Amino acid sequence: MTELLEAFWAYETALMANDLPALDALFTDSPSTLRGDAAGVLVGHDAISGFRRGRGGAPKREILHVEVVEITDDTALVIAITQPLTGGRGQQTQLWRRGATGWTVDAAHVSLPAPAIDTRVWRTIGSPLVAPVVDGPLTGQTVAVKDLYAVAGHRVGGGVPDFLVESPVATSTAAGVQLLLDAGASVQGIAQTDEFAYSIAGKNPHYGTPPNPAVVGGIPGGSSSGPASAVALGQATIGLSTDTGGSIRVPASYCGLWGLRTTHAAVPVDGLLPLSPSFDTVGWVTRDAATLAAVASVSLGEQRPVDASFVVDPALLAHVEPDVRSAFEPYLAYEHVELGDFDHYFETFRTVQAAEAWRSHGAWIEAHPGALGADIAARFAWASTITLVQEEKARDDVAAAREHLERVIGDRVLLLPSASSAAPSATADAAAIERTRAGTLRLTCIAGLTGRPGLSVPVMSVPQPGALLPAPVGLCLVGPRNTDLALIELAVSTFAT
Amino acid sequence: MTELLEAFWAYETALMANDLPALDALFTDSPSTLRGDAAGVLVGHDAISGFRRGRGGAPKREILHVEVVEITDDTALVIAITQPLTGGRGQQTQLWRRGATGWTVDAAHVSLPAPAIDTRVWRTIGSPLVAPVVDGPLTGQTVAVKDLYAVAGHRVGGGVPDFLVESPVATSTAAGVQLLLDAGASVQGIAQTDEFAYSIAGKNPHYGTPPNPAVVGGIPGGSSSGPASAVALGQATIGLSTDTGGSIRVPASYCGLWGLRTTHAAVPVDGLLPLSPSFDTVGWVTRDAATLAAVASVSLGEQRPVDASFVVDPALLAHVEPDVRSAFEPYLAYEHVELGDFDHYFETFRTVQAAEAWRSHGAWIEAHPGALGADIAARFAWASTITLVQEEKARDDVAAAREHLERVIGDRVLLLPSASSAAPSATADAAAIERTRAGTLRLTCIAGLTGRPGLSVPVMSVPQPGALLPAPVGLCLVGPRNTDLALIELAVSTFAT
Repeated sequence: MTELLEAFWAYETALMANDLPALDALFTDSPSTLRGDAAGVLVGHDAISGFRRGRGGAPKREILHVEVVEITDDTALVIAITQPLTGGRGQQTQLWRRGATGWTVDAAHVSLPAPAIDTRVWRTIGSPLVAPVVDGPLTGQTVAVKDLYAVAGHRVGGGVPDFLVESPVATSTAAGVQLLLDAGASVQGIAQTDEFAYSIAGKNPHYGTPPNPAVVGGIPGGSSSGPASAVALGQATIGLSTDTGGSIRVPASYCGLWGLRTTHAAVPVDGLLPLSPSFDTVGWVTRDAATLAAVASVSLGEQRPVDASFVVDPALLAHVEPDVRSAFEPYLAYEHVELGDFDHYFETFRTVQAAEAWRSHGAWIEAHPGALGADIAARFAWASTITLVQEEKARDDVAAAREHLERVIGDRVLLLPSASSAAPSATADAAAIERTRAGTLRLTCIAGLTGRPGLSVPVMSVPQPGALLPAPVGLCLVGPRNTDLALIELAVSTFAT
Repeated sequence: MTELLEAFWAYETALMANDLPALDALFTDSPSTLRGDAAGVLVGHDAISGFRRGRGGAPKREILHVEVVEITDDTALVIAITQPLTGGRGQQTQLWRRGATGWTVDAAHVSLPAPAIDTRVWRTIGSPLVAPVVDGPLTGQTVAVKDLYAVAGHRVGGGVPDFLVESPVATSTAAGVQLLLDAGASVQGIAQTDEFAYSIAGKNPHYGTPPNPAVVGGIPGGSSSGPASAVALGQATIGLSTDTGGSIRVPASYCGLWGLRTTHAAVPVDGLLPLSPSFDTVGWVTRDAATLAAVASVSLGEQRPVDASFVVDPALLAHVEPDVRSAFEPYLAYEHVELGDFDHYFETFRTVQAAEAWRSHGAWIEAHPGALGADIAARFAWASTITLVQEEKARDDVAAAREHLERVIGDRVLLLPSASSAAPSATADAAAIERTRAGTLRLTCIAGLTGRPGLSVPVMSVPQPGALLPAPVGLCLVGPRNTDLALIELAVSTFAT
């Protein structure tokens, strides 16, 4: 076993030096080679090699102990107790095999000590942060509050550290939070968001990208990235979120969660940092329909029933990736409608959104150059160029679009994919991200324009290369206004078999 | 591989049913069978079986995917993607082997999703909770503040939930915390303590027992259990703690950390919830000597040098476990002294401590029946019986003991084990825990009685049955008053080779 131990230590040396060719050479060159850690299990030498290229080196560590379990002359399990330089202990289990090129790893399982707080997901956590005040239908539920809502005693950060620093300590709690507390829930903590919620990616340059446990190395979607990640990871049961242009439906779709963008104005926005008030809505992500129905029940005003009458517009599929198109195929059996020009809809939506976003945050942004990451800074810079004339024109177009869409959809429920793709990789190139974003926003703006509720249901999936499991994609139900609760019931009875 | 998969699913069924005989039968009956999770790696069928008996069942989960890597006809690696019912994803890697009794597990590595906050360790966490305000010698250091210190904007909980609820939000920050902030450190969060710090075990019935990564299944020691666990786990770099009767030295010893109980009154106790003011001291646990020296430098008043002149009292070893006695053996080469009657010292110490502890908390405890767990409630109940006459007598005895000990030790440094044993198992019986406690307090009370600094240095170890690595035990240096900093330097140059 001398050769095996030499290979083990060569691997360790290469890992600490981030010597990628050496690491590649010491993992078996096969499509079935496996490597798992807290982010999930990667399958195949290419996926593992790609992961190593994206991460910029492993955390520095010492090996405290090596235990070799000999299986045959040519195979052994090697278990190492590791100690990161930052403290704590980890474990690494590797299956080594001697082949033509010497000893290589067929499968590895790596555990690192957990951080005190995953700052990609959370800004502040308590045990809980706000204790339950009464017993009610949400007793036992723990809430991840998106960092746009006021929580008494805490600041609102909006995903922007410089904004957080100047933010006053809230003296009262936002309506959307209070409704949950009054129903028996506790607040687990305040969860991260994209900067000022002006993105659907879920990548925050200050706090990092919250993990998506459903897609190995995938972005979680945004802007409700922290609440969605927290709920998907099992660190909260309810993600109190917001949706302006897809900020609940997209992370729900990417992470395999239930997500509800409520009817516009159905839940009060008091105490909520605005982005674009014409479209801003309160909503939630959960792991199951029952929890979503419970939280919606205690938060929503008067509700209406809805008919099980579904429509689809095949033209929408022009904007989605081929694998999502295939997954959506069965739903094309429902009645077809023609909604109109999606490029135009998206353009009118984003013009009014931009004008309002600049009105919400422009003065602060101008006073704080460099406070935002490049992507969101560029989006706000573009927003600052919208003229009043353009805005007025876009508002007219929004009104016309609403009228047209209401007429076409009527009392029926529009079905569409919640996003144009499964979660892109966190290391995907900008062009790929932009393509999926452009496609997704053409889908999501329909609910925004009409003020209708949009429910993302985790019932579709697409192949996930380099992983053991498929990647989730949400099926979105856009129902008539104030049918939010009925939509959940309808989705459960019709689709969530 | 049908039989293997049958065994795999039989194991899963047994795990979900907590069918202990079935689980035992499916792990190979060998002293070299291995099972690792975030708490560490257990070695041997007995240790694994004992762990299962102590935990009361595994978290409920679904298996999302099973991947079998065939090695030989009789061996295979089985990798499962798990989904706890509480959300998130985990991984389980098992090496199965076919023997005389069918397929059994030779080695297993289990990963569960991390919780949002480990409430055994922390009460509240931020990113950070209190940001650094200046650059200084502690820039980059993150502090776990024991839940006895006031932090402006937060409550002091003292390890007692009912006390926390009524505790006012602090308007200023304790001196011990402010000294660290003024030197550039940030506060990561507020960490757990034994109830009112009146224990050296580290078991809190309300919040659970913080993990000790150095001893698989071991208690962390207390009462600075949260700070010590946080630092040992790598979740903070400095544990701001207190030591009355061993509350820093014991967790440092159990967790393999550096720990300093400072000279009595050398660091102000303003803003600190008292236990026994005659003995209460501020202090810290860290993973290395350099960090401890840095934090001590910015916190301590005027310091004195110390000579490298060590003494030991072999009679002390009557109170320690045999394995610790063996580990301490080399230090018996130093000059011998006779300190006196340790039973009497401990009795005088604990009588004054109890009288003061009751004065600190008795009124609150009487007004809140049932607020404390049985162990600490019983200790306070006993404390309530100390009469003024007994207290006065004990104070005289403390003064006499101090005078005697000062005369015997003089300007030299007393060496002794920081604790009478390595960390006991969290499931050890009450008699075993009490034996080690009684022994440990006879060692730790010497620094308390004299007001001298006590430094625990992680340089000894004892065998750890059922684990791959030995368990740490601290070497304690008790130096003259106000030699705290010099003691650290002396320990580094003399013992930490």
